[in-house]
Amino acid sequence: MYQAASYDVISSDKVEGASVYNTAGDKLGSIDDLMIDKRSGKVRYAVLEFGGFLGIGTDRYPLPWDMLKYDTAKDGYVVALDKSRLEKAPRYPENDVPAYTDDYGRKVYGYYDQTW
Amino acid sequence: MYQAASYDVISSDKVEGASVYNTAGDKLGSIDDLMIDKRSGKVRYAVLEFGGFLGIGTDRYPLPWDMLKYDTAKDGYVVALDKSRLEKAPRYPENDVPAYTDDYGRKVYGYYDQTW
Repeated sequence: MYQAASYDVISSDKVEGASVYNTAGDKLGSIDDLMIDKRSGKVRYAVLEFGGFLGIGTDRYPLPWDMLKYDTAKDGYVVALDKSRLEKAPRYPENDVPAYTDDYGRKVYGYYDQTW
Repeated sequence: MYQAASYDVISSDKVEGASVYNTAGDKLGSIDDLMIDKRSGKVRYAVLEFGGFLGIGTDRYPLPWDMLKYDTAKDGYVVALDKSRLEKAPRYPENDVPAYTDDYGRKVYGYYDQTW
């Protein structure tokens, strides 16, 4: 499956579980899930698992998909995002997924200065 | 996680494993994976697992994403596709993923009369 990464498409299997780093090279967490716009088929969010300790008490942080850049050398994604900024970002516990409405989208995209 | 299905986005976790039916109501298989265009973030293909017997010897059939319609009552996807047509469609064994190039895209989309 993984060889698909070298072409123009990437499999959701490969994206899920991929590590996410900031530009300083610190690992922020890993991608837990993708949220896909039903009508357009476009991936709106990569949901980052971040925080906690040894995998306990992590939260989910939806990130606008366009913020993530794939880094071949790291075999993971890089986002221009400090930990301190991420710590204040919109988040939710794994078992309390919010309604991914347009209002929520504007909140998330707005937090990261991305166009909704 | 699953309540997200009732909003404008759907999680890749929910799409993967979802059943796929034809319009006659026959189950064709289930979605194994999604192939996402890296640049646009758009889901290009849902990869259907189909064929075989009791899960052995199944192949993977990339379907243009726009062919799939979500059916709330079925909690799965419906495609306008006969089994006989699917049986002749582009496919590959699980462990022999082709290069998802533009040429391959045109072949798959063309087979299903979809615009690439």
